[in-house]
Amino acid sequence: MIHVAILGYGVVGSGVAEVLHENAGAIGRRAEEEIGVKYILVRRDYPDSPFRDRMVRDFSRIEQDPQVEVVVEVMGGTGAAKEYTERALRAGKSVVTANKELVAEHGYELLQLAREHGARYLFEASVGGGIPIIRPLSQCLAANEIEEITGILNGTTNYILTRMIRGGLSFEAALKEAQDNGYAEADPTADIQGHDACRKICILASLAFGRHIYPRQVPTQGITELTGADVAYAGSAGYRWKLLGRAIRQADGRLCIYVAPHLVEEENPLSGVEDVFNAITVKGNAVGDVMFYGRGAGKRPTASAVVADVMDVAKHRKGPGELSWAPGGEDTVAPADALESRWYVRLAEAAALPEGVQELTRPDAPAGERAFLTGAMSGAQLRESLSGFGRVVLAQRVLD
Amino acid sequence: MIHVAILGYGVVGSGVAEVLHENAGAIGRRAEEEIGVKYILVRRDYPDSPFRDRMVRDFSRIEQDPQVEVVVEVMGGTGAAKEYTERALRAGKSVVTANKELVAEHGYELLQLAREHGARYLFEASVGGGIPIIRPLSQCLAANEIEEITGILNGTTNYILTRMIRGGLSFEAALKEAQDNGYAEADPTADIQGHDACRKICILASLAFGRHIYPRQVPTQGITELTGADVAYAGSAGYRWKLLGRAIRQADGRLCIYVAPHLVEEENPLSGVEDVFNAITVKGNAVGDVMFYGRGAGKRPTASAVVADVMDVAKHRKGPGELSWAPGGEDTVAPADALESRWYVRLAEAAALPEGVQELTRPDAPAGERAFLTGAMSGAQLRESLSGFGRVVLAQRVLD
Repeated sequence: MIHVAILGYGVVGSGVAEVLHENAGAIGRRAEEEIGVKYILVRRDYPDSPFRDRMVRDFSRIEQDPQVEVVVEVMGGTGAAKEYTERALRAGKSVVTANKELVAEHGYELLQLAREHGARYLFEASVGGGIPIIRPLSQCLAANEIEEITGILNGTTNYILTRMIRGGLSFEAALKEAQDNGYAEADPTADIQGHDACRKICILASLAFGRHIYPRQVPTQGITELTGADVAYAGSAGYRWKLLGRAIRQADGRLCIYVAPHLVEEENPLSGVEDVFNAITVKGNAVGDVMFYGRGAGKRPTASAVVADVMDVAKHRKGPGELSWAPGGEDTVAPADALESRWYVRLAEAAALPEGVQELTRPDAPAGERAFLTGAMSGAQLRESLSGFGRVVLAQRVLD
Repeated sequence: MIHVAILGYGVVGSGVAEVLHENAGAIGRRAEEEIGVKYILVRRDYPDSPFRDRMVRDFSRIEQDPQVEVVVEVMGGTGAAKEYTERALRAGKSVVTANKELVAEHGYELLQLAREHGARYLFEASVGGGIPIIRPLSQCLAANEIEEITGILNGTTNYILTRMIRGGLSFEAALKEAQDNGYAEADPTADIQGHDACRKICILASLAFGRHIYPRQVPTQGITELTGADVAYAGSAGYRWKLLGRAIRQADGRLCIYVAPHLVEEENPLSGVEDVFNAITVKGNAVGDVMFYGRGAGKRPTASAVVADVMDVAKHRKGPGELSWAPGGEDTVAPADALESRWYVRLAEAAALPEGVQELTRPDAPAGERAFLTGAMSGAQLRESLSGFGRVVLAQRVLD
């Protein structure tokens, strides 16, 4: 029997307890050992929970119980979650987490700490919910030099964009609907401003390229500036808006990494990823393009990934672990602005258009509004080419 | 240094040698050990190969060299490939293979043999080429009861169907084009008759459901009966033809497993999988639907998967391995005919249509030809409902 302690009993924590309980037979058979929840760390009472007899409020009980081999951290944030993770690792317990903020900010040091104490730190659930991506990237694609990762990494914004595109809703109405359906939090900032996607692309990039990339190094835009007009212009030319996190290896080994809305051609498999689904494409120098697709969040999908990590620890308690990367630094990242691509531009008060662009149209456009696609150029070249042509309301990249 | 012997120097074998050589730096760093090719077993001379000094013709040299820890079997077939695999495993060497026929026919006994001799038997490359699927299924989704697997598992037939749908080619012309482009072999039987897809769904099903499923237990149809008329009817209603391998868990624990062409709605992500790409969807009781997508064959994608398995052995030489299943038997499989679904039917010499069907149309249909979609029913119910309505030219399922 391998004993697990779960830190937090919110959506994911209760999902982990549920999945471990429901699928206990298959899990025990495959892990070749029973897996049981011994403690759940909570901050309030859950008198109706079937797991209420295992709830504790003091982390020390978990820390000091030598029977506990795996700690599942699903509290979120970088405060108590970080402290408890460190204490668990120092006590030689492996830690499994869904906490993307903690991994994105402190992954390198926590992986080091785990290694020093003969424990493991696993975070399959931190990116893409239940979609297998961390292990495939670190193991199945290990023979490749990874050239690029591009992903729809945030289900909330993808839901909002889908409703704007398919339902004709405004951003505000789509956000409201997402909140009503439980797909967006009361404070949706981290999602709609792109911070959540930023953390996830940092984790994927650190793993694939071997150096820690910090969120502060990643230019990040959300979807709040997109309007129905932009959706209409995009659709007229066979494109859909998607919020993408991207990391692209440059010839000098540095990474171009950023988060921004993109126009994606309808022929591209990413454009068909709708609602709260996520998809991540990886380009390796041997495998070419592969894509991983599924529900990027939610109670049971995320729990599925957490429990798989727990089972991995049950089978391989010690050992180096597959996950590791080197320290970060200012030399890891190249300016994203230098990346060349085509651009979507919407102008107001425009009298003419720059040469060589592909103009887009929409019904009922106000006078002076013009939208178009440019040829491939850097951000600096774009700004130069637009000077004097009217007020730039929106300029975003096309995914080429 | 971990020493590898490659059995076979065809497309995949030479790809493995190439990828190991090209990406040696990253591979050694990630595996925490250098990986080198010591032998390549060949049947003829390759005087121009950069690896010619490592070529041998006698398997005994590999078998008897205690330095060789990993044998890569990429010969194909179930003759010498099986014999050498057994001898390597008995000698305590781990075997990595891309040989789907051998795994589908003898996976259980080879996995047992590996276990008895403290070796590992790995076959990520046997399904989906470079797409990570074996390891995600066995590890990342290990917390799930798998309810269904549905996949486009054969790139050759998907290319042919894509050319019939997009290019308006006949089956024969599309097959010829696939052969000219190197996507189909001179003898395309195993692909176009569905045998290749059958072997792959057997491997996935054995892994996911825990009992060995043999190809002879799987009703298998290829794509040779599809015509331009069927493509046109499907397109008129928003469907595309895809050859699918499917395994669906029944309430009694048995599997409905079969290979056949299906109508797939354009909204389904599988319908957008074109050319030689493969995609596999897995439904788990915790994760919901996830999909894996990429190049299902080819030199470097397949080599990518083989080398990842070799690296896995380098990191975890011994140990139980993640892959295993129980013996097969007649009790594993339920009759596929009993599965209910909607059906596509094309009749000749039809005077009337059964009640309640959705008729389809195409330009220039000959007199007496009628095509339609039925409601959900089993194969037996379908045959009964069609009796007396004309000659059934084609009846295939709709993917619901």
